[in-house]
Amino acid sequence: MCVFCKIANGEIPSYKVYEDEEHLAFLDISQATIGHTLVIPKKHYENFFALDEEEAAQLMKVVALVSKKLKAALNFEAFNILNNSGALAGQTVNHVHFHLLPRYTDDGLVMHFAGKKLSDAEFKDLLGKINSK
Amino acid sequence: MCVFCKIANGEIPSYKVYEDEEHLAFLDISQATIGHTLVIPKKHYENFFALDEEEAAQLMKVVALVSKKLKAALNFEAFNILNNSGALAGQTVNHVHFHLLPRYTDDGLVMHFAGKKLSDAEFKDLLGKINSK
Repeated sequence: MCVFCKIANGEIPSYKVYEDEEHLAFLDISQATIGHTLVIPKKHYENFFALDEEEAAQLMKVVALVSKKLKAALNFEAFNILNNSGALAGQTVNHVHFHLLPRYTDDGLVMHFAGKKLSDAEFKDLLGKINSK
Repeated sequence: MCVFCKIANGEIPSYKVYEDEEHLAFLDISQATIGHTLVIPKKHYENFFALDEEEAAQLMKVVALVSKKLKAALNFEAFNILNNSGALAGQTVNHVHFHLLPRYTDDGLVMHFAGKKLSDAEFKDLLGKINSK
């Protein structure tokens, strides 16, 4: 059984921020920033792609609720919500979870996006590929 | 009117990946990775905290649908879903949006999390602060 399934069933203790029948939110044991919280469905799904639209929507309701709870309690300046699906994207536990990341000045969290501007032809080619599906 | 409102109402063209009555998905003009897509509600909300739970849930249904569309079309290895709420978190357009980021080997996108492990007392103190709300 995966570590988040064990946290969900209480076999491993956690610092719980929110719980309902289907979902759990708890402090990440490795606090990337103060208040860093994970939101999971109790049922095991490997990653975001394993959720159907309705399950994703229900999970996001909990993300919204818990985000507002964190905002009421912690004096943060900004906020990130992040899902990593797959090891290359930073997923380390293969049970779908959203990271809730309160942001503070000089908090050391780095997200570096070196965006490329494609040509119109390149954009149309890419769009054609996507919209053929 | 904000740039995403103008994209939503067609005043500014975009490379559309998905559209329904209430939502739009389009290729980010600055492609952090190939296929980088933004999902927005057409209605203006400043950031994630401006959405109620139901609006967040509806937006996430579109994120799920578009993520699967991208996965079917592009040969990526992993995937990130990201919301930046507030300038310090990386938000540059103040109209709530989720970034959908296909991930590939050596794609140059960097997310660096230097997690801290708090003591049990520190975790309990933090949890107490949050759960008082």
